[in-house]
Amino acid sequence: MIYITRHEHFNAAHRLFSPSLTDEQNLEVYGKCSNPNWHGHNYSLFVTIKGDVNPDTGFLMNLKTLSSIINDLIIEKLDHKNINLEVDFMAGILPSAENIAIQVWNQLESIIAEHGATLHCIKLYETEKNYVEYYGS
Amino acid sequence: MIYITRHEHFNAAHRLFSPSLTDEQNLEVYGKCSNPNWHGHNYSLFVTIKGDVNPDTGFLMNLKTLSSIINDLIIEKLDHKNINLEVDFMAGILPSAENIAIQVWNQLESIIAEHGATLHCIKLYETEKNYVEYYGS
Amino acid sequence: MIYITRHEHFNAAHRLFSPSLTDEQNLEVYGKCSNPNWHGHNYSLFVTIKGDVNPDTGFLMNLKTLSSIINDLIIEKLDHKNINLEVDFMAGILPSAENIAIQVWNQLESIIAEHGATLHCIKLYETEKNYVEYYGS
Amino acid sequence: MIYITRHEHFNAAHRLFSPSLTDEQNLEVYGKCSNPNWHGHNYSLFVTIKGDVNPDTGFLMNLKTLSSIINDLIIEKLDHKNINLEVDFMAGILPSAENIAIQVWNQLESIIAEHGATLHCIKLYETEKNYVEYYGS
Amino acid sequence: MIYITRHEHFNAAHRLFSPSLTDEQNLEVYGKCSNPNWHGHNYSLFVTIKGDVNPDTGFLMNLKTLSSIINDLIIEKLDHKNINLEVDFMAGILPSAENIAIQVWNQLESIIAEHGATLHCIKLYETEKNYVEYYGS
Amino acid sequence: MIYITRHEHFNAAHRLFSPSLTDEQNLEVYGKCSNPNWHGHNYSLFVTIKGDVNPDTGFLMNLKTLSSIINDLIIEKLDHKNINLEVDFMAGILPSAENIAIQVWNQLESIIAEHGATLHCIKLYETEKNYVEYYGS
Repeated sequence: MIYITRHEHFNAAHRLFSPSLTDEQNLEVYGKCSNPNWHGHNYSLFVTIKGDVNPDTGFLMNLKTLSSIINDLIIEKLDHKNINLEVDFMAGILPSAENIAIQVWNQLESIIAEHGATLHCIKLYETEKNYVEYYGS
Repeated sequence: MIYITRHEHFNAAHRLFSPSLTDEQNLEVYGKCSNPNWHGHNYSLFVTIKGDVNPDTGFLMNLKTLSSIINDLIIEKLDHKNINLEVDFMAGILPSAENIAIQVWNQLESIIAEHGATLHCIKLYETEKNYVEYYGS
Repeated sequence: MIYITRHEHFNAAHRLFSPSLTDEQNLEVYGKCSNPNWHGHNYSLFVTIKGDVNPDTGFLMNLKTLSSIINDLIIEKLDHKNINLEVDFMAGILPSAENIAIQVWNQLESIIAEHGATLHCIKLYETEKNYVEYYGS
Repeated sequence: MIYITRHEHFNAAHRLFSPSLTDEQNLEVYGKCSNPNWHGHNYSLFVTIKGDVNPDTGFLMNLKTLSSIINDLIIEKLDHKNINLEVDFMAGILPSAENIAIQVWNQLESIIAEHGATLHCIKLYETEKNYVEYYGS
Repeated sequence: MIYITRHEHFNAAHRLFSPSLTDEQNLEVYGKCSNPNWHGHNYSLFVTIKGDVNPDTGFLMNLKTLSSIINDLIIEKLDHKNINLEVDFMAGILPSAENIAIQVWNQLESIIAEHGATLHCIKLYETEKNYVEYYGS
Repeated sequence: MIYITRHEHFNAAHRLFSPSLTDEQNLEVYGKCSNPNWHGHNYSLFVTIKGDVNPDTGFLMNLKTLSSIINDLIIEKLDHKNINLEVDFMAGILPSAENIAIQVWNQLESIIAEHGATLHCIKLYETEKNYVEYYGS
């Protein structure tokens, strides 16, 4: 069993805001992250998959394939976008780093399996000081 | 003559869009950076000042002072803000990295001089792949 | 179950020295790290907690809360301090990176639990070349 | 139980090429990595060991000892070398990052055990965008 | 006058070897870098240009244009290549970091000028510990 | 004319304290950096030299030579030391980053010249947030 990780980037705008809270409560919970005019981040995404090394190729999965999957299903949809307004798999979901990581997992889990590997971890940096990791439910 | 540099961060949303261009021209010039729903970045700001070392303190300027100036005049205004809509010193100015760096210089030049040093360079990273530097006109 | 990590820094002096060893043995075991005049490091501390995402907030724990806990209980006590002489939770304990990580865990475990999350890992870099990780006993 | 990690570097040339594949298949699988004139990388190697802290020293293992082991058995053999042609423990093995990590594990596992610790993980960066991790079979 | 810098990467093999020196002299001057079986690096290239900000676009030069120029003229020729054997603009030139930087400058100077900017600096990292800078003769 | 830079590290303890100031003034000027029990840093030192490329070797100066000079004259004296108490070239000098950089310059300037190059810049990081640069008086 080996683990390989691919590191990709996207730059996006978002706002932390819960429709079930009042404006005052939103400000109290999310502080400046609730700014109605949005703010944004350079997100750093690490996708880790696991499985056996193919003895013919020396690879768990070809990194070109893994990178294409991540770019087609995740980066194209998030990069230079507004996560609250424009990302289909985030519709109706509060775009905290936690929730983005969980939804990225949901987008990738089955297609990684179709390529003979197992999704192991989604790690997402929102800033250099904070990151989340999700290993599936 | 010694140079000291302070590194600060801010996270903001922006959109590259010129009102003197048509929508098609904006898309052609700015690509996905012209997204009307905004996108954002973790900006990295390096402020370099120069001058003589004070023989009593061993400092060119106390870094606490320099950091306070940058935070009060720049970071407070940009962090978790929409640069197109909410930053007084960027009003009416296209928020390219070039223009942000020039306006940061304009905000800091005189106050650094009042503290007995000379502003030398504003260096601004928009992503890990791109940065601009401005040394005054 | 999601994991979130907060990254903080502190700069401190220390000396590796065991009172149960002779001076010659200390020098043999700890080399230049046993310098009686001290040396120091920029320590990088990563605190990882785990738990469920609160569906109302999208957060496992508010990062402002987590950062405050770490700063109040750990950083304030270690930053710009002599770890051998001045840090209450290191009294009588040899300040190796291993031991610092274990004591940081001991300081944080119960208060993280009081906030509804579980402490998962303390990761401590002493230099870019070395780090330790502690997951509890 | 504590985990300590040592970070080392080596710069080497290699080529991805499987003798069981035709030239066309090699190009299809490995792309520009199959260049018969070689290419190379600055590899970043992280060796993690685990075990109990020695109460006399405060160490799991002296980092000088760990670093010496890694340098003698791994870095000396790989640094400024051609991995396909010159590295005894890679003879006949396709030098993918996956396979290098597995062979580094095989070189280190028993000697780490002789020093009273347990090898936990070999993590190898080939570029900033890709890394592999191996925890034993 | 503003300066903008684009950061690109390439991974290549090379060997330091002077045909005007004997084998013993080559080993003495270049050490393990003269290995006849090659070694390699992840090179980091920073291209800095300078000029005036276009008031219509807010740009000195569109970064997409700058990136395309660097990729077409430099990265395509160096990435996953043997610098001694396969790179037209390095033919007959000892591939030290100094000489690579000078030749990259020579490839880019006129085309940057055709786009209305001035090439200012080529900065090339061979490893994290060493870099060279060239500002023209 | 080419510029080459070598990056080295040292870990040291220091205290900012001016004997010409009272204790209260020291605390006011230097804050927690005046702690009489010391604190410390992982310093990052960049030494830049300039000159012409030797057409026989492709080098401005052999990096092994440059590294040996820096290690013998600077790193050996500062690493794992108390800068206030143990470093000959800092005796009687307040160990601010500014003053350390100036004294490192003074140690290196003539020996770099003896090797046919010119010292250009000493750049010293005290933390990731602050650095100083000195180019000679």
